[in-house]
Amino acid sequence: MKFELTLEYLENLRGVIERREEGPARQLMAELHPADIAEIYDELDMDEAKFLFLLLEGETASEVLAELDEDDRRRFLEALPSDVIAKQFINEMDSDDAADIIGQMTEQKRADVFLHLDDKRQAKDIVDLLGYHEDTAGGLMAKELIWVRDEWNMRTCIREMRRQAEAVDEVFYVYVVNENDELSGVLPLKRMLLALPETRVRDISEQNIISVTTDLPSQEVVQIMEKYNLVVLPVVDENRRLVGRITIDDVVDVLRDEAEEDYRRMSGLSEDVEPNDGVWMLTRARLPWLMVGLFGGVLGAQVISFYEGDLAKHAAMAFFIPLIAAMGGNVGVQSSAIVVQGLANNSIGLESTFRKILKEFAVAFINALACSSAILAYNLIFSDSLALTLSVSAALFVVIVFASVFGAFVPLTLNRFKIDPALATGPFITTVNDILGLFIYLAIGRMLFAVL
Amino acid sequence: MKFELTLEYLENLRGVIERREEGPARQLMAELHPADIAEIYDELDMDEAKFLFLLLEGETASEVLAELDEDDRRRFLEALPSDVIAKQFINEMDSDDAADIIGQMTEQKRADVFLHLDDKRQAKDIVDLLGYHEDTAGGLMAKELIWVRDEWNMRTCIREMRRQAEAVDEVFYVYVVNENDELSGVLPLKRMLLALPETRVRDISEQNIISVTTDLPSQEVVQIMEKYNLVVLPVVDENRRLVGRITIDDVVDVLRDEAEEDYRRMSGLSEDVEPNDGVWMLTRARLPWLMVGLFGGVLGAQVISFYEGDLAKHAAMAFFIPLIAAMGGNVGVQSSAIVVQGLANNSIGLESTFRKILKEFAVAFINALACSSAILAYNLIFSDSLALTLSVSAALFVVIVFASVFGAFVPLTLNRFKIDPALATGPFITTVNDILGLFIYLAIGRMLFAVL
Repeated sequence: MKFELTLEYLENLRGVIERREEGPARQLMAELHPADIAEIYDELDMDEAKFLFLLLEGETASEVLAELDEDDRRRFLEALPSDVIAKQFINEMDSDDAADIIGQMTEQKRADVFLHLDDKRQAKDIVDLLGYHEDTAGGLMAKELIWVRDEWNMRTCIREMRRQAEAVDEVFYVYVVNENDELSGVLPLKRMLLALPETRVRDISEQNIISVTTDLPSQEVVQIMEKYNLVVLPVVDENRRLVGRITIDDVVDVLRDEAEEDYRRMSGLSEDVEPNDGVWMLTRARLPWLMVGLFGGVLGAQVISFYEGDLAKHAAMAFFIPLIAAMGGNVGVQSSAIVVQGLANNSIGLESTFRKILKEFAVAFINALACSSAILAYNLIFSDSLALTLSVSAALFVVIVFASVFGAFVPLTLNRFKIDPALATGPFITTVNDILGLFIYLAIGRMLFAVL
Repeated sequence: MKFELTLEYLENLRGVIERREEGPARQLMAELHPADIAEIYDELDMDEAKFLFLLLEGETASEVLAELDEDDRRRFLEALPSDVIAKQFINEMDSDDAADIIGQMTEQKRADVFLHLDDKRQAKDIVDLLGYHEDTAGGLMAKELIWVRDEWNMRTCIREMRRQAEAVDEVFYVYVVNENDELSGVLPLKRMLLALPETRVRDISEQNIISVTTDLPSQEVVQIMEKYNLVVLPVVDENRRLVGRITIDDVVDVLRDEAEEDYRRMSGLSEDVEPNDGVWMLTRARLPWLMVGLFGGVLGAQVISFYEGDLAKHAAMAFFIPLIAAMGGNVGVQSSAIVVQGLANNSIGLESTFRKILKEFAVAFINALACSSAILAYNLIFSDSLALTLSVSAALFVVIVFASVFGAFVPLTLNRFKIDPALATGPFITTVNDILGLFIYLAIGRMLFAVL
């Protein structure tokens, strides 16, 4: 059932394409899901992909187009004439996919495609959808849905549903609206099955349903669908009129994108890259944060150079420089990650910021005590300098407590000022904590070496 | 529509609970979705939560129970007698939720609950489900579904569906099986609406459908549902007999868990914690990796102590210790993250490992060149030691190239040996690269200071 793309298959296909054998190429793609074909395209060059694409039937081709990733799709669309795009693809697609694709085109091409679009209803839906910001419920929704009026009986209802069903791919819910087109509920398939022909929609519809307005940010749409385990979510305009629906597969994409973005940010990557992107793209994603790290390193060097005299006298002080810097960074990342994730999935609770920081302080205190005791034990055994032994433990203690509290404080503060708290994680907090850690360590060291 | 938990609401509710006012308490919870009530429970202590819980109606109570997080649920279940659990909750739940809950109980309690379970069909479904590993398709699926036989006509079909619908909460698809109970297709609601009473199921069912077997790992279930944009996925046994279905809301939970686990691992947290967990729990999640970091720091100290003589002579060598260590760590995390994410979302493509490493090498080369040139320029201006200037740039170059290739190599190798490649990210790769970076830097430094 599930298609597995293998090197063998790919080489076979490439051979067929090279020899321009249409029949065998069609056969190799027969039975494949559009998502599989899109996956194959990822591995082909533009010429090979175009040859295959022109062999696909209209509906399959438009589904493949919807599954391609943005860059590939853009290149495809540039290579195809506007009337083919309009008639063979846009006409066949769900309004949300069609709007995404048209949204990617240049103004010129967009106007041209609209000119060739026969289905005026589809054209209107697309124009509507293009009016919403892509990161809102309006940008996620599709216009295709089935609705019935609450005063209809089952007979009318089923007749109407038949009529509407032709335009809709999959039907999961039937929405109920009142005489003002305001969403008033859903008609569960189950109750419909059990109803009599004379039963009124109103009497068997489920009225306590969750809906969102077009301007709700995507992230909140995701949270709502996740929390309430929804598969489809109706979208209404400011007057509660039903205007579209969001299906959970779109939300899964948003969720996946968010998770990947967090992961990227944590790893110090500034762009969305994949292992099979080109060398230049991969470099561009990595270099910016490396430069920030470099800048942090230079600041660190400045801090240390300030203590050059002490280091010349007590070279052993240098031994623990990486330990202190790394621990400050690690602790900071941990505590900011807990806060950022808590804010993201709404599990942060209602404790006041003050109490949160206080708790962070307690956690930091225990961690600091454990770590500095461990390093104290180590140095008491292996180091012959009491000043060094005490400096390392004292500094480590202060650094851990400070980095923890700072790591929790920054994202909480950003969040309070409505700035994305995730900015606090990743290389930024590591770098700041590295530098402060060094400063604390060397200052304590100078003091203790002077005294002891 | 959407409930927002506020401090005000919570204080109000707490007051009502304290005064044991059942009416007002019920009123405060009326109209709330079970998921909202579960969210409120997170903020209450056990006593308060129990008071509220006993005020809920049977079906709502069981839905709240399914929404609670595992720890809270375990404590609740311990506090309730087995017959209440069996009759009021387990009987009312979907089989997958019921199995999850029963799976959490002690052997003793589980047997006791089964004794009190009247619905023998539900009991059998639960026992079936408990037989599957929780991280497989069998562990994710529910037994409730609606099926029809391919030789039935629409009239029989609708009569049967009515009968079955009573046991099923939501109907999205009607599955079609042949005379051996083997899954042969689905009956789309849309086609059912358009069919005549005499039409045979076989003639309007969609036969090319995707299904999975019970033993498929959850992660692959997620990938399939995501890739093919599925909302429900039928599950079959080794003989292709239909045994259950997975809905996408369960998959969303898996996806969220996976993302959170990745994020945690990247941040050096060893357990699933939330900001409002207790101090002890938070410490336990953080201390293990801090100890690993500490161990790495001690190894780093050993490496540096090996060069104590050089540092005593040229204290300035210490300036760039944190920069070199940090850059090695940063680069390693970047390159391993790209590979790990690529492996996770199957975008890694079919290039050979050798080509991947080669490309990584090219990217590393450019990054290394850029970073070491930048630091060369800085040191040519601000440093008066040519040996230091050249050591830092040369070491940085080598460290970046090495850490990049190593960062890509480790997860690729783990993956080849079927070990989770994500183990390569997080503190492990940072620590290794830190230490190797120090070694490279100090070795080059010793050499250059000796020569220049």
